[in-house]
Amino acid sequence: MERLPGFRDFYPEPLPGNEPWSCDARQYIFDTWRSVARRYGFREYDGPPLEPLELYTNKSGNEIVGQLFNFIDKGERAVSMRPELTPTVARMVATSERAYKKPIKWFALPQLFRYEKQQKGRLREHFQFNCDIFGEQANAADAEIIALLIDSLRSFGLTAEDFVLRLSSRQAWQGFYEARNPDASKAYEFYQVVDKIEREKPEISREKLAPLGISYDDVVSFIQKSEPTPELQAVLDNLAARGLSDFVKTDYGVIRGLAYYTGVVFEAFDRKGEFRAIAGGGRYDNLIKLVSNGKVDLPALGFGMGDVVLLELLKVRGKLPKFSANLNAFMMIEDETLRAESLSLIQQLREGGLLVDYSLTPTKGDKQFKRAQELGSKFTVRLEKSDTGTIAVVKNLQTRQEERVNPSEVATKLKS
Amino acid sequence: MERLPGFRDFYPEPLPGNEPWSCDARQYIFDTWRSVARRYGFREYDGPPLEPLELYTNKSGNEIVGQLFNFIDKGERAVSMRPELTPTVARMVATSERAYKKPIKWFALPQLFRYEKQQKGRLREHFQFNCDIFGEQANAADAEIIALLIDSLRSFGLTAEDFVLRLSSRQAWQGFYEARNPDASKAYEFYQVVDKIEREKPEISREKLAPLGISYDDVVSFIQKSEPTPELQAVLDNLAARGLSDFVKTDYGVIRGLAYYTGVVFEAFDRKGEFRAIAGGGRYDNLIKLVSNGKVDLPALGFGMGDVVLLELLKVRGKLPKFSANLNAFMMIEDETLRAESLSLIQQLREGGLLVDYSLTPTKGDKQFKRAQELGSKFTVRLEKSDTGTIAVVKNLQTRQEERVNPSEVATKLKS
Repeated sequence: MERLPGFRDFYPEPLPGNEPWSCDARQYIFDTWRSVARRYGFREYDGPPLEPLELYTNKSGNEIVGQLFNFIDKGERAVSMRPELTPTVARMVATSERAYKKPIKWFALPQLFRYEKQQKGRLREHFQFNCDIFGEQANAADAEIIALLIDSLRSFGLTAEDFVLRLSSRQAWQGFYEARNPDASKAYEFYQVVDKIEREKPEISREKLAPLGISYDDVVSFIQKSEPTPELQAVLDNLAARGLSDFVKTDYGVIRGLAYYTGVVFEAFDRKGEFRAIAGGGRYDNLIKLVSNGKVDLPALGFGMGDVVLLELLKVRGKLPKFSANLNAFMMIEDETLRAESLSLIQQLREGGLLVDYSLTPTKGDKQFKRAQELGSKFTVRLEKSDTGTIAVVKNLQTRQEERVNPSEVATKLKS
Repeated sequence: MERLPGFRDFYPEPLPGNEPWSCDARQYIFDTWRSVARRYGFREYDGPPLEPLELYTNKSGNEIVGQLFNFIDKGERAVSMRPELTPTVARMVATSERAYKKPIKWFALPQLFRYEKQQKGRLREHFQFNCDIFGEQANAADAEIIALLIDSLRSFGLTAEDFVLRLSSRQAWQGFYEARNPDASKAYEFYQVVDKIEREKPEISREKLAPLGISYDDVVSFIQKSEPTPELQAVLDNLAARGLSDFVKTDYGVIRGLAYYTGVVFEAFDRKGEFRAIAGGGRYDNLIKLVSNGKVDLPALGFGMGDVVLLELLKVRGKLPKFSANLNAFMMIEDETLRAESLSLIQQLREGGLLVDYSLTPTKGDKQFKRAQELGSKFTVRLEKSDTGTIAVVKNLQTRQEERVNPSEVATKLKS
């Protein structure tokens, strides 16, 4: 039986047909994300992977339903597998924000689900690094979340030559629009045109802009100038103090498609432009109020980074480490009368935190040695009878040097 | 909007209404599970949380559908959120076993979903530690997986006084049954009675056993005797060599409900009998063949341990550590002209792997200090202007001792 299209199996290491996915690579990405977020004082949270359908339609309207894994559950509830985490975290924050001093700095690593049209490389699930700050209006929060995004990518060994953050501002575009069209109700329609302008043929954008009374050239020249607004300048200065100026540029070609952004917005791209956006986010000060039906009003901002583009980029740039079982030792059992003693030593080493494997059943010595090598073990350990009792032979598989020690000293030897 | 009944929000720390759940506790459990499995040479894998419905009905029959979150997706496929991982791993192993030397030792930490009847404490999702060995017929593999289960529980600080593994054998029960009833087709029906015998009223079990031609007293006395079969004795001897005898006992009161077990089976219980089984598993040598439609035939065995009973047990036994943001330092910014320099130092400390937080906006000194304490920070760091340039004041919040150092030395100071 096949797995569903658009879903991934995560074997421990990449297998033909699953590349570059592997559980080890996924865990490496998760560990790195977690470690950076914690360095920034962010705390981890998670919500349910299944939520009431309304949570998504309330925020994004009914047109989103076509992209959801939604259904009626056995209790007649309209439910959906989560396509994003923002509505969930908005609900969690709105419910419990009183328990927290502000600002609240949270991150999560959810798996998300969208019923995308099937095409090569398009998945229907992915993992996303979600970082958000709630309860801080000042631009210092925008700088903090952007610095975290930059350092997340740097933690994988990527440099300013590999990626750049394109920084933009909904206020800048709002000012541009209001100066040209007094009808505020059409502003979002305009933002949608700007969002697609880089990928769209000029004549199509021109056509869409005409009824809004805005000229294509006007928009393009505004993008090309991209003069920082005061709030963008504050963010840029803050990042400069951290020594992160090389990783950002003001670029109004970015506006973010979603309706709910209200301030600074940004997207991270690889410098060579080979991939889709690596990450994106911005300020969404009105969403908590919307999701809580007006009960809680908290400014908010955040970003999301998916695992799919990131892993492809790391692979192409040669930034993925080699993964293995990382065994400290493979215990060789060549004399079956020593199996019980060997098991005792294995137990002792494992209890000491060491990664140890061995052949479960009687196996020829050379086969055991080959297995130790295949598993990338650093050492082999073998017990031997001697006149003075049992002796352990510890062999370093890199230097091929052997040492004979008392079995009780093996753990220390392996750790040195 | 409320979350769905039976699903959990994981706040960073337990909040009223969410106890004892928290994301920190979950991560502590995951980290511990991972670390023990790796010490045993097990590798992590995962599959999709959504699978073809057939994967579960093929193995467990149609009656399982009543307990599933199943639906028809937008491509007219009958699909289900996974209620267990075994069919998925059987599929993965059957597909790719040729890429692996045997035995294959794998573990996973999936979230699983069942539409359980709603009652207090009954959840509809939980996380499970799944460990399996594929391709090894010998009882040494049973001992290895049981030792791993024991050490998983010990790694949380639980001892032989807290829990015990009840070890049983399908062969023992098969022998018992065959000596009394020649109709092999009714054997599973008999196992089901035995599985429930501890919780069922004697007269009901008696009634169910009568048509099978087996007496209740006969069954009870077999359970009470619980003499190890040869394969159980081999497992017990192996565990004894590891020094783990205190954690197991032969107990034919356990048989495991599922149809697919074929050999040694076991369940872990708290000694006081306050909770449901903490974990359970056994040998299921025919399942890979079934799932692969006869294409692959590999012996297999494994266990599953859920997070729900485990966390309750750890809480009641006082074995949960205190969780916090674990901040190394809180940077105090009392002189706003030093904010840029402070940001630069924060960046440097974070890049050095330290966990650092600070007040994003100008805040009174005493409030900053209070925040540092609330966050459980080990140190505060504050920059000061002096005649010789900027000086960092590092304060240990436990000893209250202050030290004045060059800003470039702060990282070393915090790590010492």
